[in-house]
Amino acid sequence: MTRILCSHPNQIFTLQYFSDLFQSAKSTVCEDIGIIRDTLTAFRLGDLETIAGAGGGVKFVPAAEKESTEEYIRSLCDKLTDPSRILPGGFLYMSDILFDPQQLIRIGGILASRFLSAKPDFVLTMETKGIPVAVMTAFALGCPLVAATRDGQITEGPSVSINYVAASSRRIQTMSLPKRSIKEGTRALIVDDFMKGGGTARGMVQLLKEFNVEVAGIGVVIATKEPRNKMVTDYASLMILEEVDEEEKRIKLSPSPWLYANSV
Amino acid sequence: MTRILCSHPNQIFTLQYFSDLFQSAKSTVCEDIGIIRDTLTAFRLGDLETIAGAGGGVKFVPAAEKESTEEYIRSLCDKLTDPSRILPGGFLYMSDILFDPQQLIRIGGILASRFLSAKPDFVLTMETKGIPVAVMTAFALGCPLVAATRDGQITEGPSVSINYVAASSRRIQTMSLPKRSIKEGTRALIVDDFMKGGGTARGMVQLLKEFNVEVAGIGVVIATKEPRNKMVTDYASLMILEEVDEEEKRIKLSPSPWLYANSV
Repeated sequence: MTRILCSHPNQIFTLQYFSDLFQSAKSTVCEDIGIIRDTLTAFRLGDLETIAGAGGGVKFVPAAEKESTEEYIRSLCDKLTDPSRILPGGFLYMSDILFDPQQLIRIGGILASRFLSAKPDFVLTMETKGIPVAVMTAFALGCPLVAATRDGQITEGPSVSINYVAASSRRIQTMSLPKRSIKEGTRALIVDDFMKGGGTARGMVQLLKEFNVEVAGIGVVIATKEPRNKMVTDYASLMILEEVDEEEKRIKLSPSPWLYANSV
Repeated sequence: MTRILCSHPNQIFTLQYFSDLFQSAKSTVCEDIGIIRDTLTAFRLGDLETIAGAGGGVKFVPAAEKESTEEYIRSLCDKLTDPSRILPGGFLYMSDILFDPQQLIRIGGILASRFLSAKPDFVLTMETKGIPVAVMTAFALGCPLVAATRDGQITEGPSVSINYVAASSRRIQTMSLPKRSIKEGTRALIVDDFMKGGGTARGMVQLLKEFNVEVAGIGVVIATKEPRNKMVTDYASLMILEEVDEEEKRIKLSPSPWLYANSV
């Protein structure tokens, strides 16, 4: 039962389901839920939430325990500030982290905890590098993922496209979403790996407006400190990149202040 | 303990780790491992494997139970053969499935079970649509993911590129991998969402040769029945697409025979 619940975060399972699966009485299932909840909360691994009424049941809400989240993000900062990661043009090599499922489940879990209360119906990201972290964020939220494509090459039927300016390149680019991928009137959490000027994020906000979708939040793994005025105002990043100095081989990267303020 | 083990498939945890975490004797941890193993195997959810010696410990090996895997793939086939999924050009709309984490964790788990014994060191995929399923396959295998880029636009330092012919388009395309993303002499599992001619998969095989990396296997979610002679010979697909008839609004899609033959 622990395995099933923990493998499907935020998915509601009825007591009947477990009662059938394990061929035991509902009262026994209830008792077991109590024991599992006590264990999960005792070790701050998460919580079981009981939903009453028809369509009700029990679901697992993973928790990012405050201290260990801080420690984890700090250790990520340590890894990422290795000078050998500096790439030509002042970029930072981080694909090994952003494509490692063991890191992703942790990063996605932290982002999900941050935005769980905003109740997003789906996660939106922009291909390509944002996809893995967005998958794991959506997994932790128990909701689907939608990925916007960059070049307008859509083979998925009618689509909506907008033009946007990526602040880093200052070029006009196109961003598209298939019409059938999104339901009107829902709520989206925007997730991406990196934010500099915020042009891509603002493009996603504009694209969502075309679908009459509300933005439940914007979460990124790393945001640069400069420019301070980004093209979106309300976003949360796990880490803040202050400086990449190619000459001096120096990287300044620190955990975001909200990681200390908002515990889950 | 169940939560930790199940959330980190194929990752080895030492008894000391659990003993410290729960502040209990190793003998108690051992007993608990026995109970968890019994429960997992009784409900065919997976197994705990104990590794002796230095660097040893216990790990969770998720199992795709034969009957339920077949049932699951059959239900996927049912969903995907809805005529409304037919797109212009005889394509099939399946992004809602391939980007839904709840489906992905299942699909990735089945692919991982299929190739676990081939002991891959990492999963290789090609951007973009293969990434989500590859993330979850890598997650279930407990190994990292590497994604090749299509257009040769690499901002991640020195890279290796090859040209390949995507059988469907008959155009020469470029596929690239950053040098630092791969260690020589390792083993790769190639994962993708869709295979028609096998040109992309063969491209990945060729690219891996440049890195002196052995191919541990090729796994795709859907492969077309035609052409029968694909550009790679040894691959496993979960489903076989026989026909998409735009005129008659008919889709023929069936589970792969190996799902019945090879149980895990």
